[in-house]
Amino acid sequence: MFKKIKGISMKALMLIPMISIALVGFAFAENTVDSNAVAIDTVWTLLAAFLVFFMQAGFAMVEAGFTRAKNAANIMMKNLMDFSIGSIAFWLVGFGIMFGTSASGLFGTTGFFLSEANPGTNEGLWQFAFWIFQAVFAATAATIVSGSMAERTKFTSYLLYSVFITALIYPVVGHWIWGGGWLASKGMVDFAGSTVVHSVGGWAALAGAILLGPRLGKYNKDGSSNAIPGHNIPLASLGVFILWFAWFGFNAGSTTSGTNLSIATIAVTTNLSAAAAAITAMFTAWKRFGKPDTSMALNGALAGLVAITAGCAVVSPLSAIIIGAIAGILVVLSVEFIDKVLRVDDPVGAISVHGVCGAFGTLAVGLFAQSSYGNSSGVGDVNGLFFGGGLSLFVTQLIGVISVFVWVFGAAFVVFKIMKMTIGLRVSEEEELKGLDIGEHGMESYSGFQVFTTQ
Amino acid sequence: MFKKIKGISMKALMLIPMISIALVGFAFAENTVDSNAVAIDTVWTLLAAFLVFFMQAGFAMVEAGFTRAKNAANIMMKNLMDFSIGSIAFWLVGFGIMFGTSASGLFGTTGFFLSEANPGTNEGLWQFAFWIFQAVFAATAATIVSGSMAERTKFTSYLLYSVFITALIYPVVGHWIWGGGWLASKGMVDFAGSTVVHSVGGWAALAGAILLGPRLGKYNKDGSSNAIPGHNIPLASLGVFILWFAWFGFNAGSTTSGTNLSIATIAVTTNLSAAAAAITAMFTAWKRFGKPDTSMALNGALAGLVAITAGCAVVSPLSAIIIGAIAGILVVLSVEFIDKVLRVDDPVGAISVHGVCGAFGTLAVGLFAQSSYGNSSGVGDVNGLFFGGGLSLFVTQLIGVISVFVWVFGAAFVVFKIMKMTIGLRVSEEEELKGLDIGEHGMESYSGFQVFTTQ
Amino acid sequence: MFKKIKGISMKALMLIPMISIALVGFAFAENTVDSNAVAIDTVWTLLAAFLVFFMQAGFAMVEAGFTRAKNAANIMMKNLMDFSIGSIAFWLVGFGIMFGTSASGLFGTTGFFLSEANPGTNEGLWQFAFWIFQAVFAATAATIVSGSMAERTKFTSYLLYSVFITALIYPVVGHWIWGGGWLASKGMVDFAGSTVVHSVGGWAALAGAILLGPRLGKYNKDGSSNAIPGHNIPLASLGVFILWFAWFGFNAGSTTSGTNLSIATIAVTTNLSAAAAAITAMFTAWKRFGKPDTSMALNGALAGLVAITAGCAVVSPLSAIIIGAIAGILVVLSVEFIDKVLRVDDPVGAISVHGVCGAFGTLAVGLFAQSSYGNSSGVGDVNGLFFGGGLSLFVTQLIGVISVFVWVFGAAFVVFKIMKMTIGLRVSEEEELKGLDIGEHGMESYSGFQVFTTQ
Repeated sequence: MFKKIKGISMKALMLIPMISIALVGFAFAENTVDSNAVAIDTVWTLLAAFLVFFMQAGFAMVEAGFTRAKNAANIMMKNLMDFSIGSIAFWLVGFGIMFGTSASGLFGTTGFFLSEANPGTNEGLWQFAFWIFQAVFAATAATIVSGSMAERTKFTSYLLYSVFITALIYPVVGHWIWGGGWLASKGMVDFAGSTVVHSVGGWAALAGAILLGPRLGKYNKDGSSNAIPGHNIPLASLGVFILWFAWFGFNAGSTTSGTNLSIATIAVTTNLSAAAAAITAMFTAWKRFGKPDTSMALNGALAGLVAITAGCAVVSPLSAIIIGAIAGILVVLSVEFIDKVLRVDDPVGAISVHGVCGAFGTLAVGLFAQSSYGNSSGVGDVNGLFFGGGLSLFVTQLIGVISVFVWVFGAAFVVFKIMKMTIGLRVSEEEELKGLDIGEHGMESYSGFQVFTTQ
Repeated sequence: MFKKIKGISMKALMLIPMISIALVGFAFAENTVDSNAVAIDTVWTLLAAFLVFFMQAGFAMVEAGFTRAKNAANIMMKNLMDFSIGSIAFWLVGFGIMFGTSASGLFGTTGFFLSEANPGTNEGLWQFAFWIFQAVFAATAATIVSGSMAERTKFTSYLLYSVFITALIYPVVGHWIWGGGWLASKGMVDFAGSTVVHSVGGWAALAGAILLGPRLGKYNKDGSSNAIPGHNIPLASLGVFILWFAWFGFNAGSTTSGTNLSIATIAVTTNLSAAAAAITAMFTAWKRFGKPDTSMALNGALAGLVAITAGCAVVSPLSAIIIGAIAGILVVLSVEFIDKVLRVDDPVGAISVHGVCGAFGTLAVGLFAQSSYGNSSGVGDVNGLFFGGGLSLFVTQLIGVISVFVWVFGAAFVVFKIMKMTIGLRVSEEEELKGLDIGEHGMESYSGFQVFTTQ
Repeated sequence: MFKKIKGISMKALMLIPMISIALVGFAFAENTVDSNAVAIDTVWTLLAAFLVFFMQAGFAMVEAGFTRAKNAANIMMKNLMDFSIGSIAFWLVGFGIMFGTSASGLFGTTGFFLSEANPGTNEGLWQFAFWIFQAVFAATAATIVSGSMAERTKFTSYLLYSVFITALIYPVVGHWIWGGGWLASKGMVDFAGSTVVHSVGGWAALAGAILLGPRLGKYNKDGSSNAIPGHNIPLASLGVFILWFAWFGFNAGSTTSGTNLSIATIAVTTNLSAAAAAITAMFTAWKRFGKPDTSMALNGALAGLVAITAGCAVVSPLSAIIIGAIAGILVVLSVEFIDKVLRVDDPVGAISVHGVCGAFGTLAVGLFAQSSYGNSSGVGDVNGLFFGGGLSLFVTQLIGVISVFVWVFGAAFVVFKIMKMTIGLRVSEEEELKGLDIGEHGMESYSGFQVFTTQ
């Protein structure tokens, strides 16, 4: 119908080229300075949301690329389904818990299934825009867990888990920090979600990986660890490029405003941190393993993106480079530590990338925040330890990091433990050996190719 | 040159930081509220067009992933060429037929090769923006057909077909519904093209698949059907993620206006329908085949996207979920029906996804439309059967669905039939067995890998 | 923090739906017509920059797909690292050389490491936006070289080269043409960088490929050339689709302004040139080799994109089609010429696509420029030979093309030559045979698949 109006306008224009542009069928009401500003903010927020949606593709490709060919269709299905189930669960329950009227700063209690969003008002339309932006964030937290639980998790259990994280575990943290909850009141700064999104995913991933146990063949009798190489490095690399691309929407989009010009500094800090982290991760791996491992450099880029997410709107470009550079080193050491010391099998390094670097990035805000950037982005007059703010912001950040760890790890542990005791968390040994593509989905990922299903 | 101006401004800014931002070389004329509104609409429409262009990548990956390795380079070439040829044909002929001055509501007669678009006026510049948005839509309709005709169609015939659909078959339907034609006059609602784009592609695909006949080895002597598994499920999944991502541009972009804030509700309904459809398709396949098939869930997501396309701007989120949920079930049943009962070989399920679910989604508008959403998006005061509007809208939608089927299926059948009788539609048996990559293009898709070219 | 404000606003909205939209926490200062215009320009420039970043994924996939499986992880690493190192080097040095206060029109001398960008002013914020847009362009020039040097270059040498091109070679050309330098003063028109970006990459690629020498097995004793087929045509095709998609940001984004409505004509000319070039490249290859080779058609699309980049804002759609059509023919002939006559081994055709077609496109501006388009886009009153402008613009373009060739080929030759004489440019024969994935990075790209590492 609207198209029809456009169509007629087009014809009119062809016949009467002098017709005023104001008549080209755009506006329903009169445009004003304020209505234009709202439109800019809505356009920006939606386009950023679309980019964040696209992270699902990135995560799916990274996870599949870094694991074995026999499980790739299962990984695709998990990534498709955590987003799909997550969207519905966040609509029904999660959004209300995250942004509804607060019960003592702990969780929200209104706004379920967009019940209060009225399409007839600009306020209502904004709620739809805000909802889609928040929904794709919730699904990002959910999908992080998939990687650390790859190649051995029962598909039905994964479906069930998706409901819990998007309806409950994630929204509670979101309420604390972004929904006006108790950590927000304390002044915690997590601009785009190093903690809210990435650590939540990372700590849930840790709980899941511990309860699942390692993949068959991952650890030897003497406790030493075997590398299980991924089956498609170009696919994993494509995933990282997609994630980096989409992260611009994730971070700069978190202004939920295009008239807030600090979107420009956020794009710069995001990019520089990722670049620095890729470089330092490469050199760290080079030094420790003798060669510059591609997987580690890729995870380094992600580590830099995760680490800058909390502070992207409050730190300078130079600080962003330092934060990224540290994250790049940290992620390599953490992957080794979790693999060889903790002996937790995390096939894609999700715990290190999202949990550890998410926590680091959140704490780094307490060191590197500068009010000149914070005031520009609207976060406010915050200064970290290195810029004259003393220790108070750092302590707040630390309280936030610890609290979120306790809640998420605890809640996810309970959810996965109950599943383990009831429907089961892990596929049979036979299925794991054959691959989950056949076992869970009755199909192959690479029909026509000879694939060796080692271990 | 413009860059130069920017460069100079940059330097100026560095030297004279107090220079007014209004001088940063942006504006040619004075900015006004109206010129800003036009800019917002243009930026939005172009970015949406870029996203819709990216659907070409999505369709190519889905089609290749769901078919055999020996035909992948041919599929890439078809997808590249239908877009390229389609762009030129739509510029020369199609756009004029779709949006030119109407001949009795049947087809347009002016506006060929952008002849009336003057870059010196804002009206003219808008026509360029509108053209690129419409051109990528036309190419989408064209590329849908590629999937159902995969693995056996002569490349030259496919090139020729691309001209017909983008220059004639699609633009005629577009004129009827979006170009001020006879279905537009009746009040048919197809906001972003469940019928205009997807059913057009789906019904042409049906005609093509019937005339081609099934792939060698697809059906047994007793009429029973063999599954021919796809060669790359991660690639197909990537394609679906790309399509979902791009669909936000397809649907929300169809306002061709960023100052129309209903772009927010459209993003929400689009997402929820796709999510619901992926879930119901998974459960339907699970129930019918015993396991949750990844391909069916992926097609389910696409079915939900296709089905909500007509109504995305006129239904509520809950209605979107219901529409998607039905589409997810419908697509699985339709794939089975077409494969086993009609015995039409559609390698990727394009007829079911685009034809059947496109028709369903168009009819669903007649049931679920709500004026609160329609008024907000500018479609107007439309109500479906379930929201007090009686049967009249549904009947209009039904007339539209049937008319488009008759025209498209008929025209495509004639085009393909003439090709079959003259230049031939299908490759030789020998070529089909060896693969079209070798036969049509003299190359392999996966040099260095051992690929089994079964059947 | 900002999210918190949003969160509170959300709750407030739920409780007090009548609250003014102007209070939804957007604005820090009062919105004005001018502040909205700046926001539109910033949003546009940033989104375009994100798209241009995504070209990294496109280039990586094209390069990997067109080469052998045994080198794919090395190619991913090179593409990740030239962007990462390039981002840091451009921040430290390159941007200042490109846009700083000019030393006699030869190079800039101020503005290093964003030292003069103040986040507290709108001018400063604009500098951040401008910087990220320019940074992703610099990295594009860098990554082009990777393709022609694929499958035999020492990884450490490639890292070092990345510093030189992004810190020095590219920024000098950028200064000449976009930074107010001597070619800008002459009136050279290279709107989005056929020369600044693509020829720079192409000529550096030529120097590198010459000094490296051909891959083992590429040329026979009698001087005849062997085709070394790529290992993944769908991946390469995906890369081309990504590049085409991102190129809309590259070209239309080069207005660095969304209120400049010529972004619409630029999108149209960009698309039509690419489409025409894909078609003519296909037919040229068909005629010369007997079959329509998919790789050539893909390179044709890229050739059309490269060629229209200089003139996208100053030519008509019809001229764009002609430019693209010529580029599509040219790229096929150039690939053959470089391969068989010059006997320079360019695995992906980067020299032809970016160097030759970049030069052609720059010259084509001198023929096809039309002031009606140039005035609309802000380039100004420029007319080429075919539109009444005489030869003067063409001569200026020619001077620019030659000067850039001399500087870039010369400088890159010296850099690579010194590397060759010191740290070495090429891996050992043994490593080349085994593949650089194992040799340089100690890993395989396709673990679990049997890959034949021919030659």
